[in-house]
Amino acid sequence: MKDPKIKRYMKKLSYSYAFGTYPTIDLLKYKPEKVIKIYLKDESFGSAGVDEIIELCEKNGINYEVNNRVIEKLSLKENTYSLAVFEKYECEISKGSNHVVLDKPRNMGNIGTIIRTMVGFGFKDLVIISPGADIFDPMIVRSAMGALFTINFRYYSSIQEYTESFPTHNRYLFMLNGAKSIETVKYKPPYSLIFGNESTGLPDEYAKLGESVYIEHEKDIDSLNLSIAVGIGLYRANLISK
Amino acid sequence: MKDPKIKRYMKKLSYSYAFGTYPTIDLLKYKPEKVIKIYLKDESFGSAGVDEIIELCEKNGINYEVNNRVIEKLSLKENTYSLAVFEKYECEISKGSNHVVLDKPRNMGNIGTIIRTMVGFGFKDLVIISPGADIFDPMIVRSAMGALFTINFRYYSSIQEYTESFPTHNRYLFMLNGAKSIETVKYKPPYSLIFGNESTGLPDEYAKLGESVYIEHEKDIDSLNLSIAVGIGLYRANLISK
Repeated sequence: MKDPKIKRYMKKLSYSYAFGTYPTIDLLKYKPEKVIKIYLKDESFGSAGVDEIIELCEKNGINYEVNNRVIEKLSLKENTYSLAVFEKYECEISKGSNHVVLDKPRNMGNIGTIIRTMVGFGFKDLVIISPGADIFDPMIVRSAMGALFTINFRYYSSIQEYTESFPTHNRYLFMLNGAKSIETVKYKPPYSLIFGNESTGLPDEYAKLGESVYIEHEKDIDSLNLSIAVGIGLYRANLISK
Repeated sequence: MKDPKIKRYMKKLSYSYAFGTYPTIDLLKYKPEKVIKIYLKDESFGSAGVDEIIELCEKNGINYEVNNRVIEKLSLKENTYSLAVFEKYECEISKGSNHVVLDKPRNMGNIGTIIRTMVGFGFKDLVIISPGADIFDPMIVRSAMGALFTINFRYYSSIQEYTESFPTHNRYLFMLNGAKSIETVKYKPPYSLIFGNESTGLPDEYAKLGESVYIEHEKDIDSLNLSIAVGIGLYRANLISK
C-alpha cells in the first residue's frame, strides 16, 4: 500500500491516527489488517514497547519508518514516540452479546472513557445512534487508550433501525425519571443498556422501548456525568450477571 | 470592592471565574460573600436564569454589569451569557463527615466530574493531597457545573498531614492490588475514600493506612479511568450506608 498523505485529521478522511506506544500495540494486535503504516521517533528505540511494535510490524508485513517530523506535526501531546496510520472501519455488532447503546453522544472524552470502561466490564459491542461524535477522531482513540481496537461498534441512523436489527434484545433505558432503581433491575441477556446524551438524556418516549432505569442521586445536581452513569450501569449489570 | 483586573486565569491570581448561568447561580447561592462582580451579556436579559442572577445580586448587594466584551474575552466556549468573578478560598473539612481524598490528581476534567459525582452521592468534603491540579482553574469550575461551590475542600501537603488531622477516620484505599473487593467492604463512618492519580494510582505503602479495596475489572484494560473508579466507589459506599 502506498504511503498515506499525512495531514491533520478530519472526519471525511478514510484513515485516522493512533498516537502512543500502547494504543499502537493494541491496534497491531487486534486490527493488523487495518494498519497502513507506523511512524516511530528515533529516540524511542530500545524502549520495551517500541521493540514490541517492530516485532508486530515484521510479523504482519507492516511498513514502519523512523520519522520524527511526521509525529511532531500531528501528535496531540509531547513525548509521543509512535504514530499508527490506520484505515477506518465499521464492525458487525454481535447478535448474542450484550450491547451498550449511546444515543447521539457528543463529548469525545466521554466516549473514549466509556469504551475503556466497557472493556473493563466485559462489554464488547457498542452502538452509536447518529448523529454522534466521530469514533475515529484521534481524541477518542487516545482517551480509549487502545480499547477501541478490541471492541465492535457501529453507527445506526435511528433507534428504530437499531431495535429492528436486534428485536429480541431486552432493553434497559437509563433515564432520570426511570421507573425502576438500578439496584432492583434484573438484566436478562442478551440485553442493551441504552444511554442518552450529555445535555438532554433520552427522550421520554424511549421509555416504551423496554424497562426504564434510574440511578438514585441527590437533587443537588441535575444529573450524573454521562460517563459516570454508564460506568455505574455497566459495573452493576456486570456484577449481578456473575 | 473595586473592579478586578480582568485577565486570563493563572494559578497565582487571588480570584477566579465561573462561566455560565447555572454555575453563577450556585456561586451566588452558596458563596455570595466570595463574589466580587458579575458580568452579563445584553442578549441574556429576559432568560429565566439571568433574572435569578440579578435578583441574587440585588439581595446580596453584589455589583453586576452588562459587558459583552469581558465575557467574550475570557469565556471558554460560545453562548456564555454570564461570568462571575470570585475570590478564591479554602474551607474547613468537616470532622464528622465522610471524606473523598484524591492523591496528587492531575486531570482537570476528572476533578470537575468527581466533584459533581460527590455531590450526587452525598459527599461534601474533598481533600486534595498536593501537588494536585488547581481546583479554581476555570476548566474545573466549569466541569463541576456549580457543584464546586457546595462542597468543602482543602489541600494537604502530604497524606501524613491529612491522616494526623483526622486520626479516627476509617480509611479505604482504592488500589489495583487491593486486599478486598469493593462489594465486600463495610464502610464504617466517619470514613475516607482515598484514590490515587491517573497515571500511577496509590503507592503500595499506602495499603497500611487502612483497608485496601479493588474494583474488579477485566485484564484487557490496565485500570479504570480515575473518575469512573471514584464514581463506582462513591456510588457503592453511599448505597450500602442507606
